[in-house]
Amino acid sequence: MSRTVCVVNEFITEAHKVKINAIAEKAGFTVRYYLTKEDATGHIEDCEVLFGHWRSLLHEASGLKWFCCAYAGVDPYVPPFQFPENCMLTNSSGAYGVTIAEHILMVMLMLQRRMPEYTDIVRRRDWVNDLTIRSIQGSRITVLGTGDIGTTFTRRVRALEPASVAGVNRSGKVREGVYDTVHRLDELDSVLPETDILLMALPSTPETIGIMSKERIGLLPKDSILVNVGRGTAVDQAALMEALNSGRLAGAAIDVMVPEPLPTDHPLWDTKNLLITPHIAGNMTLGYTCDKTVDMFCEDLENYIAGRPLKHLVDLKRGY
Amino acid sequence: MSRTVCVVNEFITEAHKVKINAIAEKAGFTVRYYLTKEDATGHIEDCEVLFGHWRSLLHEASGLKWFCCAYAGVDPYVPPFQFPENCMLTNSSGAYGVTIAEHILMVMLMLQRRMPEYTDIVRRRDWVNDLTIRSIQGSRITVLGTGDIGTTFTRRVRALEPASVAGVNRSGKVREGVYDTVHRLDELDSVLPETDILLMALPSTPETIGIMSKERIGLLPKDSILVNVGRGTAVDQAALMEALNSGRLAGAAIDVMVPEPLPTDHPLWDTKNLLITPHIAGNMTLGYTCDKTVDMFCEDLENYIAGRPLKHLVDLKRGY
Repeated sequence: MSRTVCVVNEFITEAHKVKINAIAEKAGFTVRYYLTKEDATGHIEDCEVLFGHWRSLLHEASGLKWFCCAYAGVDPYVPPFQFPENCMLTNSSGAYGVTIAEHILMVMLMLQRRMPEYTDIVRRRDWVNDLTIRSIQGSRITVLGTGDIGTTFTRRVRALEPASVAGVNRSGKVREGVYDTVHRLDELDSVLPETDILLMALPSTPETIGIMSKERIGLLPKDSILVNVGRGTAVDQAALMEALNSGRLAGAAIDVMVPEPLPTDHPLWDTKNLLITPHIAGNMTLGYTCDKTVDMFCEDLENYIAGRPLKHLVDLKRGY
Repeated sequence: MSRTVCVVNEFITEAHKVKINAIAEKAGFTVRYYLTKEDATGHIEDCEVLFGHWRSLLHEASGLKWFCCAYAGVDPYVPPFQFPENCMLTNSSGAYGVTIAEHILMVMLMLQRRMPEYTDIVRRRDWVNDLTIRSIQGSRITVLGTGDIGTTFTRRVRALEPASVAGVNRSGKVREGVYDTVHRLDELDSVLPETDILLMALPSTPETIGIMSKERIGLLPKDSILVNVGRGTAVDQAALMEALNSGRLAGAAIDVMVPEPLPTDHPLWDTKNLLITPHIAGNMTLGYTCDKTVDMFCEDLENYIAGRPLKHLVDLKRGY
């Protein structure tokens, strides 16, 4: 019986199939493609390798050896979810940096230049043009989470001449020297008061849940801004709303929140100077992002076939 | 009688005054400050050097030798306006690059990532997140006008990894090697079909009025975008509206238009995928920009006092 790879992704193109097939067929694998979870359900029992992002499929393949998640965040796969034993998990962290960095730059500039207010002005066909704006030039930026997203953003924002970019992560170390300084998480309280623009790009792990507590939001200078593109769990939302509504923070942009979708009666919608986007930063509608996830899967498919360690392996205990 | 410098600017701070006074007083000049045109009217007859941006004041000072315009665009000073004879004109081109480049990046990202549509989605508290987006990464950018604004933007956008950045100007030459290629204006028709993102950052001169004609807008690829931060006169607005409403262009962002302010019944307001801002890109509410205009004035005040040529002199015949 032929060994089977199943690909369950709505964005797969013919070019992607050619690429995946070439690698798989060389090793005698059969590849089957499904667009959606519904298409795949009931058809993947024999699947050894699965590339997709629907976790309910994982228990349909009794002999699954490797699941490659097309997303970067793997928080849905940690307990209480029971990830199949003896199955490897890889993710696609590395594919989303470019598109999310562009989203971050956009919303930071929108907040600094008061675009939400100008949108209202233009909507009523008014000609007000003297709102006091701020710049990225000369601002002190703190990047909380120095993975692919934080680092890809930092490489871009340097060209806008911020005063400094500080990275904050678990170890206080980074592979690439793009940050002016790098701090350990336990030094965060001393970094926040020196921050004009805070970017949060953290995975959801026990360590990051609630990390921007009411106390820490209170450490940010008046007139600073906060951008969160990681996971909504990282922010005390009630404290954020209060800081924004009272004018202590100049603004915030959140692409992630709790819960998602946000109910229509949730108070976040009415929060002052809060730019909400419906989890679009890492949108799979961008061809570049889809190509990258396929490239990364193919890279590890070659490793898998050759019996080499997988490059994008997730440590389920660590959560990323 | 003491020679007199008059400064008529609403943004002058105490620190600016200290800086200007130090240079002027060393040479025996008296400096008088007015916040507005109304404050200054009737009080500047003895003025030899004027720093401001209200042209109606120019004929109040019969012995005016130098007018330093705090803005970059000097189109209001060319005929039919009668600029005083034997008076030099300098401008503040060089002070606006940073703030306008940030505006340009913001609106380009907003158009590429379909933020005007997402703003409507969020306004109705909906949770749609699958609009097809585009990226700056991999896009072919054309910069029409390679002055301070075009060049400051190009230095920044390179970090976002566009496929290419082509500059277009009168001479086909630039001082700084930030562009992949530089073309003469008469080659524009061959550059436009190879353009995904067109930035227009031109002064208003006889050569630039109507430069983006209906024919040239038609040369842009379907799904390209156009951003104009120079002068509204450079674009055939009727042709732009038609291209946008018919879906031939993916979007446009204009910070300048004809006329300004835009009347509430103007069809531009109702144009599809058009992001209008009320001439805010070079906003004087940003301290950095104000500081730069004062620095540039001070630099030339030193030159003026020493009898050296002024660095930021405008050629009124050329128009910039």
